[in-house]
Amino acid sequence: MARRYMKQDVPLEKIRRYLEPGPIVLVSSSWEGERNIMTMGWHMVMEFSPSLVGCVIASSNHSFELVRQSRQCVINLPTTALLDAVVGIGTTSGSEIDKFERFDLTPETMEGVDAPAIRECHAHFACRLHDDSLVDKYNFFIWEVIAARAARTPKHPETLHYTGDGVFMVAGKVVSRRSAALLSMEPR
Amino acid sequence: MARRYMKQDVPLEKIRRYLEPGPIVLVSSSWEGERNIMTMGWHMVMEFSPSLVGCVIASSNHSFELVRQSRQCVINLPTTALLDAVVGIGTTSGSEIDKFERFDLTPETMEGVDAPAIRECHAHFACRLHDDSLVDKYNFFIWEVIAARAARTPKHPETLHYTGDGVFMVAGKVVSRRSAALLSMEPR
Repeated sequence: MARRYMKQDVPLEKIRRYLEPGPIVLVSSSWEGERNIMTMGWHMVMEFSPSLVGCVIASSNHSFELVRQSRQCVINLPTTALLDAVVGIGTTSGSEIDKFERFDLTPETMEGVDAPAIRECHAHFACRLHDDSLVDKYNFFIWEVIAARAARTPKHPETLHYTGDGVFMVAGKVVSRRSAALLSMEPR
Repeated sequence: MARRYMKQDVPLEKIRRYLEPGPIVLVSSSWEGERNIMTMGWHMVMEFSPSLVGCVIASSNHSFELVRQSRQCVINLPTTALLDAVVGIGTTSGSEIDKFERFDLTPETMEGVDAPAIRECHAHFACRLHDDSLVDKYNFFIWEVIAARAARTPKHPETLHYTGDGVFMVAGKVVSRRSAALLSMEPR
């Protein structure tokens, strides 16, 4: 069973710390009494403030209608401790099972959205749909993150980065050039 | 000095293997006799075929006009061996220096684009602008990858994943669930 975390709020302009490294994430959603979780690798940070995140959710996924109709989701960050759940969620369909029950995950309320967060994850980002102009063409959603919570420790958990074909790279080791924050990639 | 790689063409629908894990990349561009390189962390895979990649290049970057006017770029994948160049490129401006010369990098021609690839990188993705509809609003470019080359070995190089503030996570270790490719994240 995954560990329990002590969590704290994260300033919204700081969430890039969790998402910019490109981990696979779990997107949870709900709409009219139904809930679901999907595994997602196609996402990116788009702006510091407002805190914007873009992602592709293919229309063939059961979650597509839930996020499109509710205009909300929670992006959850799993660590390597949740590898089996990440794979299980990504290889089953919410049209057939309740993924919280099947994978023994705990729904948790989050400020500002009805979509449930997943307690066993390291961090959670509550999202409201900010721009749907490219949903029809590319299944591309732009979300505004309106609340964020993350575990106090570990500071740099091991995360999973998907390459396709069931193969993940693991990031956890840290290299620092703190004297040299990248101009091209910092807020201004 | 970075090692020399033996490189081979990569099928365009397979490039997610390199970019979906979310590494920091080097974007090279040229326009009217000028060339530049920028360090970029805000990118994502958007489609298998055509092979689409989205990215944000802030208009304050010197590269912005080069990629917007030329409607081309090359996305290059550096490994940890290039950490110093990645940081150097991200903390200087192409308005003042030629980054190929300053960081001892070798421009290389690539099929289908005038923008130079960076020989010392592990992989290269030649891009043509596919959709600029959200450039004015979000600095968001959607590229079609029209040619791709990657080193034959190592199969899973150590890559850099930016968290902000000069801190990178390193991915290199691999975990495999090959029997269970993620339905939600595979081509269909």
